[in-house]
Amino acid sequence: MDKKIKVAVLGAGGLGKAAVQIISLKKEMSLVAICDSMGYAYNAKGLNTKALLKLTRSDSVAGLKEGKSSKDPVGEIIKLSTKFDGVFIALPNLPNEFIPNIIKRFIKKGASLVFTDALKRTRATELMFKLDSSLKKSKSVYLVGCGATPGLLTGAAVLAAQSFVKVEKVNIWWGVGIANWEEYKATIREDIAHMPGYSVEKASQMSDEEVEALLDKTGGKLELHEMEHADDILLERAGVVSKRSQVEVGGIMDTRNAKKPVSTAMTLTGITYNGQRSSHCFMLGDETTMAANVVGPALGYMKKAVWLKKHEIYGIFGSTEFMPMVVK
Amino acid sequence: MDKKIKVAVLGAGGLGKAAVQIISLKKEMSLVAICDSMGYAYNAKGLNTKALLKLTRSDSVAGLKEGKSSKDPVGEIIKLSTKFDGVFIALPNLPNEFIPNIIKRFIKKGASLVFTDALKRTRATELMFKLDSSLKKSKSVYLVGCGATPGLLTGAAVLAAQSFVKVEKVNIWWGVGIANWEEYKATIREDIAHMPGYSVEKASQMSDEEVEALLDKTGGKLELHEMEHADDILLERAGVVSKRSQVEVGGIMDTRNAKKPVSTAMTLTGITYNGQRSSHCFMLGDETTMAANVVGPALGYMKKAVWLKKHEIYGIFGSTEFMPMVVK
Repeated sequence: MDKKIKVAVLGAGGLGKAAVQIISLKKEMSLVAICDSMGYAYNAKGLNTKALLKLTRSDSVAGLKEGKSSKDPVGEIIKLSTKFDGVFIALPNLPNEFIPNIIKRFIKKGASLVFTDALKRTRATELMFKLDSSLKKSKSVYLVGCGATPGLLTGAAVLAAQSFVKVEKVNIWWGVGIANWEEYKATIREDIAHMPGYSVEKASQMSDEEVEALLDKTGGKLELHEMEHADDILLERAGVVSKRSQVEVGGIMDTRNAKKPVSTAMTLTGITYNGQRSSHCFMLGDETTMAANVVGPALGYMKKAVWLKKHEIYGIFGSTEFMPMVVK
Repeated sequence: MDKKIKVAVLGAGGLGKAAVQIISLKKEMSLVAICDSMGYAYNAKGLNTKALLKLTRSDSVAGLKEGKSSKDPVGEIIKLSTKFDGVFIALPNLPNEFIPNIIKRFIKKGASLVFTDALKRTRATELMFKLDSSLKKSKSVYLVGCGATPGLLTGAAVLAAQSFVKVEKVNIWWGVGIANWEEYKATIREDIAHMPGYSVEKASQMSDEEVEALLDKTGGKLELHEMEHADDILLERAGVVSKRSQVEVGGIMDTRNAKKPVSTAMTLTGITYNGQRSSHCFMLGDETTMAANVVGPALGYMKKAVWLKKHEIYGIFGSTEFMPMVVK
């Protein structure tokens, strides 16, 4: 096997494009396949990432020299699954079954791969964990929830928990600023789905105009509280909390300003062995974008997933169970 | 094998005693052996931790019902090495060769165990890494640098690094407050060894009176800069930094006040894929003591070491390579 990890990226929106750019800066990874809703592109020797990054929002990867149109672009990537080592799933997950169903197709194909994602919903993550025995049978490794939250901040909660004999609560409060919401259409819809009166189904069916109208009402900001976020199930599985309700996730998304409206931080409060209540805090620098904090960890966890596969440790694990690796 | 991890603690000073207390609160661990410089105690069914915690500073564990005097207490623990699963080394490491030499004795005995420590010095950690192939042969797992720093804060640096394509520096600045330095005689000497004009050898040979005289001059405080701290080698191995000089460790120890003189924090500064310089920060709550932040992680890493051994992954690894587990 080539020393480089050959990567396929599912999705070419804001996160997918960031993945293309970050992978292009890495010696240890090579991007060989990518798809969007219109088509896919593949090159065994590595895609032309410069050409990929020149695509505008309305262009499909199908239009690249290395691209092809398809009615089932994910299916085309699945057919190529012996040609790469790892898959980063940068697709929107609306509805909850969408990504789990894609993984079932990979498993059905008998693909032995590593996968990372940036899944956010608790229910979607529960569906993923049900695939454990099938993933083991196909000798695959899936690390779930490998973005910023769940992901980076959830991992920090596992570290923070070490100082305490009892964890009382984990609070994650995030700020995201994006200058133009159309770069992150799917992410915004996933956030809208958390708002009172909305659901995953309702948000996924909103037209761009309806999203615009909603954002006009809120001055472009979405403030979310008590989100259904998979940090809870991942911290429960890791034993950091005994009840999912001990984990609270919320934040503010500004869709009209690249500056973060609030700083992103994870605060874990617990009781030490000598009876002291205290809080450890992990805070992200305001200058780091959502894309940097999601895609960086997802690729770092992919390198760890490759390590696990090499050691014949298969199945699905949360991002709370392993330390991501640094990809050079 | 019993489901509980049977633990031996080497050392019964401040950190050793904290380990006794924390293990006594855990369902998944049982303390079966401990030693100090005068003797050792062993009970296959678990030591009487209440009796252990009643010992004063001048008492030896040899005086316990389960205890025995010995001229080579560590040697006695090594003889018992088939009776436990894990060893937490809570001994002072003066000189640098002291703990590596103890591990060589375990290896010579053919013990297949897991080990964690709270080693701090870079040179001592280098000596430990040289034992990798011997540890592999004896089917043992050694996780090195599993305290607060290196340990908890160094792990947080690996997480923080994920958002960046280039890490510029990692700064660790710690504050420790202890009401009575005599509880942590060895720790204080290890800190003095970092001061200008002192060495590991010189500090280890200081009498208690000489330490007192030094502390009198500084009002009980020790302020340390550019410490030789193994965070550098561990972050270099993990690929977070390319040069050890990018890691800077310092702090203030107040030996006359349980309150921390400054907050303990790890700050990692890097450049994101889109060219932004930013810093992530992991900050420990002031109410958490050194003992809580060292022993908690050391036991969490021990559980991970047991997981590694179960998966037949042997040898020595840094605390930067794995996520510690939550011990229930």
